[in-house]
Amino acid sequence: MSSEHETVVERGKSNGQLADSKTPLIRNCWYVAAMAGEITRELRARTILDRKIVLYRKEDGGVVALQDRCAHRSFPLSKSTLKGDNVVCGYHGIIWAPDGRCVRIPSQSTCPSVVRVKSYPVVEKGPLIWIWMGAPEKAREKDVPEFSWFDSKATVGHFHLKCNYLLMHENLMDLSHFSYLHGSTLGAEGFAEERAVMLNTDDDTVQYYREIRDNPVLAGVLPMKLQEQLKGKKTVNRNSVCFVSPAFTTGVDKITAYDSSGAEVLTTNMHIAHFLTPETQNTTHYYWAGGRDFAQSDSKEDREYLELMSRLTEQVFAQDKEAGELIQSMSESDCDPDFVERHVAGDKMGVAMRRVILKLANQE
Amino acid sequence: MSSEHETVVERGKSNGQLADSKTPLIRNCWYVAAMAGEITRELRARTILDRKIVLYRKEDGGVVALQDRCAHRSFPLSKSTLKGDNVVCGYHGIIWAPDGRCVRIPSQSTCPSVVRVKSYPVVEKGPLIWIWMGAPEKAREKDVPEFSWFDSKATVGHFHLKCNYLLMHENLMDLSHFSYLHGSTLGAEGFAEERAVMLNTDDDTVQYYREIRDNPVLAGVLPMKLQEQLKGKKTVNRNSVCFVSPAFTTGVDKITAYDSSGAEVLTTNMHIAHFLTPETQNTTHYYWAGGRDFAQSDSKEDREYLELMSRLTEQVFAQDKEAGELIQSMSESDCDPDFVERHVAGDKMGVAMRRVILKLANQE
Amino acid sequence: MSSEHETVVERGKSNGQLADSKTPLIRNCWYVAAMAGEITRELRARTILDRKIVLYRKEDGGVVALQDRCAHRSFPLSKSTLKGDNVVCGYHGIIWAPDGRCVRIPSQSTCPSVVRVKSYPVVEKGPLIWIWMGAPEKAREKDVPEFSWFDSKATVGHFHLKCNYLLMHENLMDLSHFSYLHGSTLGAEGFAEERAVMLNTDDDTVQYYREIRDNPVLAGVLPMKLQEQLKGKKTVNRNSVCFVSPAFTTGVDKITAYDSSGAEVLTTNMHIAHFLTPETQNTTHYYWAGGRDFAQSDSKEDREYLELMSRLTEQVFAQDKEAGELIQSMSESDCDPDFVERHVAGDKMGVAMRRVILKLANQE
Repeated sequence: MSSEHETVVERGKSNGQLADSKTPLIRNCWYVAAMAGEITRELRARTILDRKIVLYRKEDGGVVALQDRCAHRSFPLSKSTLKGDNVVCGYHGIIWAPDGRCVRIPSQSTCPSVVRVKSYPVVEKGPLIWIWMGAPEKAREKDVPEFSWFDSKATVGHFHLKCNYLLMHENLMDLSHFSYLHGSTLGAEGFAEERAVMLNTDDDTVQYYREIRDNPVLAGVLPMKLQEQLKGKKTVNRNSVCFVSPAFTTGVDKITAYDSSGAEVLTTNMHIAHFLTPETQNTTHYYWAGGRDFAQSDSKEDREYLELMSRLTEQVFAQDKEAGELIQSMSESDCDPDFVERHVAGDKMGVAMRRVILKLANQE
Repeated sequence: MSSEHETVVERGKSNGQLADSKTPLIRNCWYVAAMAGEITRELRARTILDRKIVLYRKEDGGVVALQDRCAHRSFPLSKSTLKGDNVVCGYHGIIWAPDGRCVRIPSQSTCPSVVRVKSYPVVEKGPLIWIWMGAPEKAREKDVPEFSWFDSKATVGHFHLKCNYLLMHENLMDLSHFSYLHGSTLGAEGFAEERAVMLNTDDDTVQYYREIRDNPVLAGVLPMKLQEQLKGKKTVNRNSVCFVSPAFTTGVDKITAYDSSGAEVLTTNMHIAHFLTPETQNTTHYYWAGGRDFAQSDSKEDREYLELMSRLTEQVFAQDKEAGELIQSMSESDCDPDFVERHVAGDKMGVAMRRVILKLANQE
Repeated sequence: MSSEHETVVERGKSNGQLADSKTPLIRNCWYVAAMAGEITRELRARTILDRKIVLYRKEDGGVVALQDRCAHRSFPLSKSTLKGDNVVCGYHGIIWAPDGRCVRIPSQSTCPSVVRVKSYPVVEKGPLIWIWMGAPEKAREKDVPEFSWFDSKATVGHFHLKCNYLLMHENLMDLSHFSYLHGSTLGAEGFAEERAVMLNTDDDTVQYYREIRDNPVLAGVLPMKLQEQLKGKKTVNRNSVCFVSPAFTTGVDKITAYDSSGAEVLTTNMHIAHFLTPETQNTTHYYWAGGRDFAQSDSKEDREYLELMSRLTEQVFAQDKEAGELIQSMSESDCDPDFVERHVAGDKMGVAMRRVILKLANQE
């Protein structure tokens, strides 16, 4: 164990070295605005990065994201009416086009170009709709991420979190909580002691890796048939996690089993992506998707397994949600001026992530 | 269409030219405190212009409005007991007279004159009780308004609004919202395009007028019998609205029908008054009364018509309430620093009204 | 009646002579943290003086009070697990000892001494658990109060109050409210006029005393048998109250009956203690205990009487709770800048108490 791991760093409220729940939200980033199926020809209100947005589809299916506040008298466009591709304000009938231009004002004959609402760049890719809340000239569609494993077989879910998004990113940067917070659901005893290795990166990602021999932490969530095949085999469990951007963190859990001759007899890959879209400074939209390279058939058995996984995942992430919300509430209600948070070895990646966020915030 | 109508005025948060929801409430003004029937020998608490008030009737029926907060230890007098014309505080038994004097302190033998609660000037006129929350020496009973048409046949109602009162005054200063906000209830299609004319006034009122030929906007709310009589006739619909004071706005809708010879065959007058009493900066007591010069008999038919009108009016004003509350909520929760409200032609009267309110606020 | 009694003192918001609901809470004082029976081997969260606390018993029964916020990532220890005498944080498994030391960090091999949570001094004495929230070096166990009459026969209860604790202390310093606030339950008519005498003390207590001849105010709450014995007798009712510390006020009500020869034929003593533990600046834990030197047998009659007393006490104190909360709410919501609270003769003790509190606050 390196001495570096043992360092205990103080983090007081005035310690400006790490991002915390007061750090301004990062705007120049693609965030998940919604699952594709959520956005239809119905106007849907959503708050993202402290901005009121209305989302809808045009007649050709293209997704539109407008400022939800009529530029005239602040009436919510999401309480208005869709007419073709335009939104007719429900108060005085002013009409807004998908690009934010005003195209009709009933009480006057012209529409000055200065009268407009913001239109936000959105990109639909696979099952996700992404939005860019930052400087429009920096929005590049090629930066929108893609997930090869995220197909119709993936298990997905959604929570609204009453906590700052960094509390969830921090949760994901230290999986030693598996043994405690998820002890009852995952039974990942001993996992907390397994040391993770942080990989050096020269960009703004934070990656880490664990290799666990003969006690694959997530073996218990494999289909029974695969669990049988692992019995008595030597295994290597490779678990890696990557904080890709303020908008999401991904993980892969790979289990390889070897027979007594050392030959590889089984390999399973489980993928996960956690999409964390700040709603406000202290609330978060949390979407997740889990994929895998097994149980992909249309058999009753596989379908039942995926349903089971879907429920289990929701159960586990509900524990993360509860932890995040308890911590948010504690931080807001405890008034002890002496309180200082302490870092432990397991926080190395979380600390690195918070440094990245602070750097990004300072750049904006 | 005059070029003036087309002007788009910017209103940013720092633009100090117009009153908005942050403008201090106007105190030197008679406001409706309650409908006459609401105030009885029961103590009734009400907050008006951010002041806690207790209202009740003396044994002779006269209405009293006292500060609701005992000057001794802040116990609410509205949770106390009426004894003759006085209020006995429910905590330590201190007794307050209708003029705010202290007339008994159980633990001592005298009542120093400095110990008193505020007593507010009130005037009961017809079905309304008015209150003066400003400088007492400026309260003149002769300024209390009167409405000849407001009698026992009038349709009345009340809403509590979770929005600043100016949002409702502004609503009334631009009836172009009829076609959109009330499209489903009034079906006033095309009304938004009808140009209103603002009348010059040399006082602090704002008046405007519309003349609509052959398509009377409110014809649909007349009794069926009258609607029959309008059929095939030439009509002129004269609609005028007046912001009289921060406390209320009135309107008259007159429909005149002419036969083919040009002779007047029918005239109907509908009156409305909207009483807007700020409860706090961002909540409002909204009372309304509607009168008319038809359907005034005691016949079953007329009574049923008035009941119908009563329900319809409430339904329409519920839409105004919803709009006001949505806008208030939007203004409070949207944090986009770039947002600027834009004025359109239809806002001419609303803008004039907000100038008057700002002027009055600056005078106080 | 002394002229002093008649003085009316002004108390405006800027008058800094008396403590009010804005005065910082007094920390160097023993407060009731809980009734003994409330604290078990279950972790129990409680907020005391604006600090989040977790309370539990060790295996030997000793009571522990720790900061409820894990020093690592602010997870509530009260949502964690007890293991022997230690608390295992439910998030990452860090283990805390009863003295606040960290004894295990799963992700590292050592526990730096700087990593700790606060442990608060607690003393269990009879049915009460006391806590010291101030400077630890000033906590002396010998200062924890004791009540000889507070045994298993005492009637006890608990309320959570949505008001600053001083509003309740003030309530207790002026029992003239008996005739009004409790008129319906105690029927203590005329009590408000009985003059109380404040006793001089040279410490930070405030004591006062009333002597009432032939109309014992609380006679109505004695067992019927004793009420019978009082009939036709001369009586002296000696009522004394003492504000002992910011944490509690005690009272004794003694009724002595004499026969026509002047011989003492009956004496009853009723004790009460009001424990007021600030939860936050504007909320309070209120515990009370009532004792007496009669109805102490195990007879059905005595047990039924004590049950009756228990219910009546709760009913009476619910009225005090309501008054405190109404006043708190009034003070927070009424915005009249002209408001000034007035003191009357009955406030002499309350004013003295508020002077003591202000002095203690200034000392801290």
